[in-house]
Amino acid sequence: MAHLNSHYLKLKAGYLFPEINRRVKAFTDAHPDAAQRLIRCGIGDVTEPLPAVARSAMHKAVDELGVRESFRGYGPEQGYDFLRHAIAENDYRSRGIEVADDEIFVSDGSKCDCANILDVFGDSNRIAVMDPVYPVYVDTNVMAGHTGPADGAGVYSGLLYLPCTPENGFMPDVPGERVDLIYLCSPNNPTGAVATREHLESLVHFALAHEAIILYDAAYEAYIARPDIPHSIYEIPGARKIAIEFRSFSKNGGFTGVRCAFTVVPKELECQAPQGEKRPLHPLWNRRFSTKFNGVSYVTQRAAEALYSAEGKSQVASLVSHYMGNARILREAVTRSGLTVYGGVDAPYIWVRGPQGATSWEIFDRVLNNTNIVITPGSGFGGAGEGYFRISAFNSRANAEEAARRFASLRW
Amino acid sequence: MAHLNSHYLKLKAGYLFPEINRRVKAFTDAHPDAAQRLIRCGIGDVTEPLPAVARSAMHKAVDELGVRESFRGYGPEQGYDFLRHAIAENDYRSRGIEVADDEIFVSDGSKCDCANILDVFGDSNRIAVMDPVYPVYVDTNVMAGHTGPADGAGVYSGLLYLPCTPENGFMPDVPGERVDLIYLCSPNNPTGAVATREHLESLVHFALAHEAIILYDAAYEAYIARPDIPHSIYEIPGARKIAIEFRSFSKNGGFTGVRCAFTVVPKELECQAPQGEKRPLHPLWNRRFSTKFNGVSYVTQRAAEALYSAEGKSQVASLVSHYMGNARILREAVTRSGLTVYGGVDAPYIWVRGPQGATSWEIFDRVLNNTNIVITPGSGFGGAGEGYFRISAFNSRANAEEAARRFASLRW
Repeated sequence: MAHLNSHYLKLKAGYLFPEINRRVKAFTDAHPDAAQRLIRCGIGDVTEPLPAVARSAMHKAVDELGVRESFRGYGPEQGYDFLRHAIAENDYRSRGIEVADDEIFVSDGSKCDCANILDVFGDSNRIAVMDPVYPVYVDTNVMAGHTGPADGAGVYSGLLYLPCTPENGFMPDVPGERVDLIYLCSPNNPTGAVATREHLESLVHFALAHEAIILYDAAYEAYIARPDIPHSIYEIPGARKIAIEFRSFSKNGGFTGVRCAFTVVPKELECQAPQGEKRPLHPLWNRRFSTKFNGVSYVTQRAAEALYSAEGKSQVASLVSHYMGNARILREAVTRSGLTVYGGVDAPYIWVRGPQGATSWEIFDRVLNNTNIVITPGSGFGGAGEGYFRISAFNSRANAEEAARRFASLRW
Repeated sequence: MAHLNSHYLKLKAGYLFPEINRRVKAFTDAHPDAAQRLIRCGIGDVTEPLPAVARSAMHKAVDELGVRESFRGYGPEQGYDFLRHAIAENDYRSRGIEVADDEIFVSDGSKCDCANILDVFGDSNRIAVMDPVYPVYVDTNVMAGHTGPADGAGVYSGLLYLPCTPENGFMPDVPGERVDLIYLCSPNNPTGAVATREHLESLVHFALAHEAIILYDAAYEAYIARPDIPHSIYEIPGARKIAIEFRSFSKNGGFTGVRCAFTVVPKELECQAPQGEKRPLHPLWNRRFSTKFNGVSYVTQRAAEALYSAEGKSQVASLVSHYMGNARILREAVTRSGLTVYGGVDAPYIWVRGPQGATSWEIFDRVLNNTNIVITPGSGFGGAGEGYFRISAFNSRANAEEAARRFASLRW
């Protein structure tokens, strides 16, 4: 008889967003008049139109597919050369960072990549995640059997949670024990924190010393504003030996519905094989792409390429600036209300310390009732998020301004 | 220190297509004049333009993304309702087959689905594949650690290979031993065979009796021509309890470069959990989609939906009829050359028994040298393919006709 993967049974129900929806529905059912006033600052999804360069490129690519001579069927699983080259050249080499075209793997999403990367690692690795944490890192390790069961608070045994607090700038301290894989997300979802050069250096040194691998999720890289913050972990010497970097077109080009991202696996990155010898990971990831994936839509890859044109870069900059304008407006308003605010400077998320003694869900209910704004409770991202909440800057300017007015008038 | 997944080290190098390319290059280097005469009947990739309905739908969807009011970000991971409904209605319910909209999971490719489905199964299942076999089924089980090493002939220990021969119509006999997962591909790649209703019934009965699961790859379903051949395994009573069906838009709509497919997981399909109790697989697959995938491009989903319009159905029928016209021309020519030919009636692949005593690679070289046609050696798909070769009908009509002339004049 066929057996299912019993590790899936350890997963806690996808609790956070369904619970938010349940509470919002209960509220609007009870106050139908408030439903129209509702502003959603919970979701991490873009709201503004797809850049014109991307749309033009897509129209052109669709037309090419309509003509036998320019029709394209299966493309290279790892991505078309034109896109791998544009990425390596613009995101890395033009910034003085060594990355070869064939170290870029084009995919249909960073969430997929962060999940799929576990395929090429063994089952005996000790895994560390940040707390608060983007739940996909945890859940995919649960599914792969790398954890024990969860306790009542949703903490899985076998995982090492690295607390991220105001004291460490919401970036993890160097682990005090053996770790083999470290998930690092910067700019961070949910806290909006970024790793400084010094912080990244300390983690890269740790990884080099312990031959650990850093899984560096930089999906929000485009939002880095301060000039001294690294855009890539490969800016840190030695990182090519121990870091895999994930990037996405979701939040810079507004591609959440279009689906394109990429992963960088440097060729000198090695891991241990069963006989104790070291082997490069690049051929394994390459093989995974060839065997389990068939490449991203040609139309989508042309759209991503277009974001690297001069016009494309300017349109991406406008989009980012729009959302970061929202972030500034929201930051200032919440600060005026008397709360302590983090993030929102190099990231589209604002992380707010709620009033003393209130749980994240109590704050959620209070904000919903008093301002008709939907936020995300920090405890949904892990124990260290308790007492915090997240505000997303992905919104229209009008909504951001109205939300800011309501936040500013809140009395905690 | 981080460990890699050592099961990947058991994989034989992706030998078949690189070796074909190497031999073709050696030949054209030695005979530059022949390079222009080369006709590729090796690949399984479509060649004709994308249907007009799909292109119109994509243009419209791209325009929608350019307007704030109609912009779409993240869609449902499992696919938009409009597409899940169109699939369930047109491919199943209108043919009298019970499939609910939410049993359809829209993905970016059948190769991905056939690979990813292993995520939700445990590691103790006994797995059977057809021989000859689409290599993805084997390689993904190797990667997941479900096999031992390969022998010199590329046969992995721990897998059960079910021989497919002229005697059983190139469809596997009911296994004579315990099996938990059975991969079944019909219409078949590479043999072009299809499972008759009686054959499917015997396998469904086996699966019901042994509580095994059939992974039914019907990516070439659109090529079924004979009226008595089932289009879906769910036409067989009881199959909803034991079968997962994979379908694709790659070969009917010409979407190999556009990327869209789907999987059907019926809600009554159950597997064994660790305590011995049975549990439905549907929630696990659903959870996998939510956690490890972010949905197919909105633009692509609109294109797939358009294939179900009256105009779309007619354009798909034209495409299929074009390729099947090629198949008939090629079949007849190879038959005239004196060889025994299988497939090519309900599938775009022709499977040819080579001359007595010749290996697949010997035949490959002889065909390349004498006709400048590239075929695929049958032994590349497994031991039972030795002595055979595959001809693909994916080509222009002019190429198919010229290839037919050359095949017909071959003296073996």
